[in-house]
Amino acid sequence: MTILDGKKTSEQIKQEIADEVTKIKSEGGKIPHLAAVLVGKDGASQTYVNSKVKDCEQVGFGSTLVQLDENTGEQELLDSVQEINDNPDIDGIIVQLPLPDQISVQKVTEIIRPEKDVDGFHPVNVGRMVKGLPAYIAATPFGIMQLLERYQVETSGKNCVIIGRSDIVGTPMSILMARKANPGNCTVTLCHSRTKDIKAHTLEADIVIAALGRPGFLTGEMVKDGVVVIDVGITRVPDSTRKRGYALKGDVDFDSVSPKCSHITPVPGGVGPMTRAALLWNTLQAAKNSFYHSVATTE
Amino acid sequence: MTILDGKKTSEQIKQEIADEVTKIKSEGGKIPHLAAVLVGKDGASQTYVNSKVKDCEQVGFGSTLVQLDENTGEQELLDSVQEINDNPDIDGIIVQLPLPDQISVQKVTEIIRPEKDVDGFHPVNVGRMVKGLPAYIAATPFGIMQLLERYQVETSGKNCVIIGRSDIVGTPMSILMARKANPGNCTVTLCHSRTKDIKAHTLEADIVIAALGRPGFLTGEMVKDGVVVIDVGITRVPDSTRKRGYALKGDVDFDSVSPKCSHITPVPGGVGPMTRAALLWNTLQAAKNSFYHSVATTE
Repeated sequence: MTILDGKKTSEQIKQEIADEVTKIKSEGGKIPHLAAVLVGKDGASQTYVNSKVKDCEQVGFGSTLVQLDENTGEQELLDSVQEINDNPDIDGIIVQLPLPDQISVQKVTEIIRPEKDVDGFHPVNVGRMVKGLPAYIAATPFGIMQLLERYQVETSGKNCVIIGRSDIVGTPMSILMARKANPGNCTVTLCHSRTKDIKAHTLEADIVIAALGRPGFLTGEMVKDGVVVIDVGITRVPDSTRKRGYALKGDVDFDSVSPKCSHITPVPGGVGPMTRAALLWNTLQAAKNSFYHSVATTE
Repeated sequence: MTILDGKKTSEQIKQEIADEVTKIKSEGGKIPHLAAVLVGKDGASQTYVNSKVKDCEQVGFGSTLVQLDENTGEQELLDSVQEINDNPDIDGIIVQLPLPDQISVQKVTEIIRPEKDVDGFHPVNVGRMVKGLPAYIAATPFGIMQLLERYQVETSGKNCVIIGRSDIVGTPMSILMARKANPGNCTVTLCHSRTKDIKAHTLEADIVIAALGRPGFLTGEMVKDGVVVIDVGITRVPDSTRKRGYALKGDVDFDSVSPKCSHITPVPGGVGPMTRAALLWNTLQAAKNSFYHSVATTE
């Protein structure tokens, strides 16, 4: 059984990015710069945004943190994003979700320029991904694809069952795993809350991607021997033995599932760190104008 | 066994559209207008485009047919589309595919304004569909969804197997059938050329959508009793007994499959006419500015 070590792999990716930044610097090129916008004081959101800024420092990127008050109006936020859109020094923009109720997530997502949308949430990037065109792919799906690729997990012709149909994980994963590419070429089944018998599907799966957000949902008797299991869940479960008062639990019951696996991601240290590295990778591509530049001049 | 009669249903939809056009006219509103661009003299393409123009006449739409020479350069076509983009009298634009080799389909698709993209091929419309936002949905998937809806075929919680992962049918169908909506809420499995055992999947399916373009591929022993079968195939098969020299054959072997079905679409007279009606429906929405207007002013 091979542990798909997201911590180690993400460190490798970050090292590769840092090396590229060093090279860019030595050639007098444009240093990648990420702007993160945070509205309000939600604890988890602050933690996430701070990590992203720290990651930027680690690889040598510039970063700008825009902190707005909880009561920020929609137009004020849209104006703020527009200003970053127009700032040529900033390559990538993320607006940390969730947003307060007075603000339309859709409007904010759509005002970000697709060329700077390193979260890959803009419809243009989603649509381009579906069509197999160069695009920013959302960090979690991209991180999972990187993990499969770097561990050379065989996917072609395999049955892949995805549990959870969210916009940012399950649905894009179903598209990426089905498409004609490597990794990819799977026969993909997308399960969700309306699926009648999830176990009937997971028992036939060569690859299971659990992204429903229910701690310990996938258990050993739901999978077959030799399965590849990707655990996207990271639920905070109260744990008084820990200083911070909670433990991170995945959607997979590791103890019963892992003995049957050929490959499995742990939680923590699996998909989570890959997601963070993916955002940096997208930001590097933004600085290099990899996706939208190439479309305009080649093809 | 119920025949999902696409011919009859499409006539109903066209009648509803014609009634709405009459109402628009009586109120002095904007008559929907479709522009179709055809490059070259491919026989099938000419037939399709002529049908679309005829459909427009039938429901009272205006239409413009732009015919360009086989040797038209890419920039010339892009300029032509741009002109239609800027023409306020034209609501919807389609560029008939395939295009000659010297022209990039991607560039042409992306230059069409998303608000006028009634084929639903632009990445913005694909991305919005994936995100569940108002969008033009490509004619074939939209026609199938209409057929399921109007015949009140139960889809929630059902196993739906789609055969074929094309950009314009299989992949969007997999997204539409899986999403939280009615029709929708299916557990969707997307099969394709790399799937090892398609029959193992179709035998478990409550709904099969065959969109691979191989005449008679789905046979009776591949489906279970009570299945709903949607046949998207329309391959021209040589047939000397017909005046035109060919017959249209679906991907489903109707004779062996239909006795096991609760519902099935025939070929011809199933998905084909629904596709034509869907394009008219999209053009009506374009004239009413249904999708992009509502986003700008509400939400």
